Amino acid sequence: MKKVKIALLGVGNVGSGVWKILSTNQREIRKRSGYDIEVSKILVRDISKKRPLDIPEGILTTDINEIVNDPTIEIVVELMGGNEPAMEYMLSAMRNKKHVVTANKLLLATQGGELMQVAEEEGIMLYYEASVGGGIPVIHGINESLTANRIESIVGILNGTTNYILTKMSLDGMSFEDALKEAQEKGYAEADPTSDVEGFDAVYKLAILSSLAFGTKIDVDSIYREGISNLKSEDIEFAKEFGYTIKLIGIATEKDDVLQMRVHPAMIPNKHPLANVNDSYNAIFIRGNAIGDLMFIGRGAGELPTGSAVVGDIISILRNNVDLSSTIETKEINPCKTTSSMDETICEYYIRLWVNDRPGCLGEITTEFGKHNVSIASVRQKGERGSYVPLVFITHATPEGDLHKALEEIKKLEGISKIDNIIRLENF
Amino acid sequence: MKKVKIALLGVGNVGSGVWKILSTNQREIRKRSGYDIEVSKILVRDISKKRPLDIPEGILTTDINEIVNDPTIEIVVELMGGNEPAMEYMLSAMRNKKHVVTANKLLLATQGGELMQVAEEEGIMLYYEASVGGGIPVIHGINESLTANRIESIVGILNGTTNYILTKMSLDGMSFEDALKEAQEKGYAEADPTSDVEGFDAVYKLAILSSLAFGTKIDVDSIYREGISNLKSEDIEFAKEFGYTIKLIGIATEKDDVLQMRVHPAMIPNKHPLANVNDSYNAIFIRGNAIGDLMFIGRGAGELPTGSAVVGDIISILRNNVDLSSTIETKEINPCKTTSSMDETICEYYIRLWVNDRPGCLGEITTEFGKHNVSIASVRQKGERGSYVPLVFITHATPEGDLHKALEEIKKLEGISKIDNIIRLENF
Repeated sequence: MKKVKIALLGVGNVGSGVWKILSTNQREIRKRSGYDIEVSKILVRDISKKRPLDIPEGILTTDINEIVNDPTIEIVVELMGGNEPAMEYMLSAMRNKKHVVTANKLLLATQGGELMQVAEEEGIMLYYEASVGGGIPVIHGINESLTANRIESIVGILNGTTNYILTKMSLDGMSFEDALKEAQEKGYAEADPTSDVEGFDAVYKLAILSSLAFGTKIDVDSIYREGISNLKSEDIEFAKEFGYTIKLIGIATEKDDVLQMRVHPAMIPNKHPLANVNDSYNAIFIRGNAIGDLMFIGRGAGELPTGSAVVGDIISILRNNVDLSSTIETKEINPCKTTSSMDETICEYYIRLWVNDRPGCLGEITTEFGKHNVSIASVRQKGERGSYVPLVFITHATPEGDLHKALEEIKKLEGISKIDNIIRLENF
Repeated sequence: MKKVKIALLGVGNVGSGVWKILSTNQREIRKRSGYDIEVSKILVRDISKKRPLDIPEGILTTDINEIVNDPTIEIVVELMGGNEPAMEYMLSAMRNKKHVVTANKLLLATQGGELMQVAEEEGIMLYYEASVGGGIPVIHGINESLTANRIESIVGILNGTTNYILTKMSLDGMSFEDALKEAQEKGYAEADPTSDVEGFDAVYKLAILSSLAFGTKIDVDSIYREGISNLKSEDIEFAKEFGYTIKLIGIATEKDDVLQMRVHPAMIPNKHPLANVNDSYNAIFIRGNAIGDLMFIGRGAGELPTGSAVVGDIISILRNNVDLSSTIETKEINPCKTTSSMDETICEYYIRLWVNDRPGCLGEITTEFGKHNVSIASVRQKGERGSYVPLVFITHATPEGDLHKALEEIKKLEGISKIDNIIRLENF
């Protein structure tokens, strides 16, 4: 059997998964790849740190040069995450003619173009299935299987941490703060949860998917972003009453060569399969002009699911697959315009206000909506007359710009405490 | 731009879809494949037949030799279906060094080994994504993305016709006969619906998936098979009462190197995502030892979804992908034992009997169950005392052999009209 040497940069969560899979599934991997894979070096920050894995002595190193300058190492697997030194190390590995597998969504989303270009210049393969959706083979799917399609839209639950929090809020009635705390205790959320909770992580993943699906360069700053930290238990409960479930979604749609991408909480009809994707599961819903609707559901994180995607990429390289990198950036199919404006986005909306429930108040609010052509589908009020109570509207489909103009006027009415939340309803 | 000539064998439903996609999505396909694809010949039975497609004169032919003997044709796309002459034509195309794309599940399931072997001998590529799940990229998924996994089980809604019928029975309260008639009128079911309704189609698809997932040769006759024609509206209604939905599923599980495959109606808990896959949608649920649970949902039939898979395969060939055929049959990972016996299958069961509701009858039945170690979880009875009424039992998990022994005894009791239906409950 042929042998191949690979190196891991980092052996944290995903790295441990890769190590375990290479050993547990050795028989399958040998047969499918045709190779005996040897992890010959692992880059770590601290060699003496206790690790639960049975790693032989001499494999660990703190010196990247022992990897990039070792001509016997053919594949470098970057699992450090973050910006630097991961970028420098990947470029250095590629310049030394090593194939690279990475799970680094931040770098793919923000500096993917440069990585792809160097891969092409050096004639090596750069694979990154693990960067989106953990084990879910969505990148392979878009790049290899949906190639006959013009993709019209992608809607994804792309972040497992926020999906776990929203599931706890929805099914167990927890507050955002308590659900976040539980997610942190279980290791689903980091000590600083900003990247997950405020939607940055989902933005990076949406950028990667969009660049592949729409064949165009993506500037992550053109993606509209809202997190879930503003969601209150009452929003979850009102959504339930109306037959919806709130999910943090990433949406990319292309129409008339204009691409719009956005990440925000949305109310999904309970009958849509995305509404029933719970806990830390991810899901990606793709609509193509030939395939129709296609959906992938799977574990979006975790050492073994993400490790499954990484080891799958290693096997793909060994089987000398087509170079996935060549389909991104360097071969733009559709250099379409991107809009980051939400004013013309047409949605139905959920709006929750606090009002002093005096006579005539509802009439004044609905009059302002009417003046701006915002048509109301449903109203719900809770609490006692004469006090400040939550008042919820669901609108018919309306351009977001009109809605905001109406709300500007409504804010000025007497007895309106504040507009507490606006959530888009997505019916796809 | 490079040019490539291809030929279609047949231009019915799927062939029309392929023709339309090649023209509608020409821009995307050129960019992604690097080729200008020309359909230079189409094999038909009757040239003069009116077709709704705008096919140029001179492309149609009734002579296979004009295709297999034309050295300028590089890819042959077999969309005739059935046994012969499809097999002969594919072999002839491969022997003439043409790559082959096919949607022929019957041939893949029953003579896949021979097709793969010839493909390997001739050094050509044989792709068949469209043979299972229409547009759903499940074959690519298993072959390319899940390679790091030992697959433990596959559960699929593999037949769109029966899923359409069951959806109509479940959501609209239709009888099996009426739902089948409607499916035939809408073109979802054929005039002779046996292959769909009795589970043969699902058996072929399960055989293809199993051979890839478990890396072993599959004899289709070793797959246990039950269709849906015996399902009555009362079974659907009782299932609902218990919180289940009835689906025709294909299941393949491997344990201790023994592979069991079966196709039959099953009661799926409503909270499982498979229970909510309706109409003609297909779904495939895969459990791997690294990836955990992964599910694909999409259109399992239709000219454009199936055409999407066929054209995707053509593009994969043009991009010179890895030869998928090399992973099936010829490279057995796991030549495991197959069992076709259901006696040791452990399930919970739904059993519907007609009984003369005389005093003591229920006690006699439950005593017989008890004697054979079949433990009852739930009983429901409908109708009036003193007449023949349906009586439904749900058992706890029990080996199927024991259940049948108990039922043999129960049949002999006074007042038992017949055992009308037995449906397995699947909790995965």
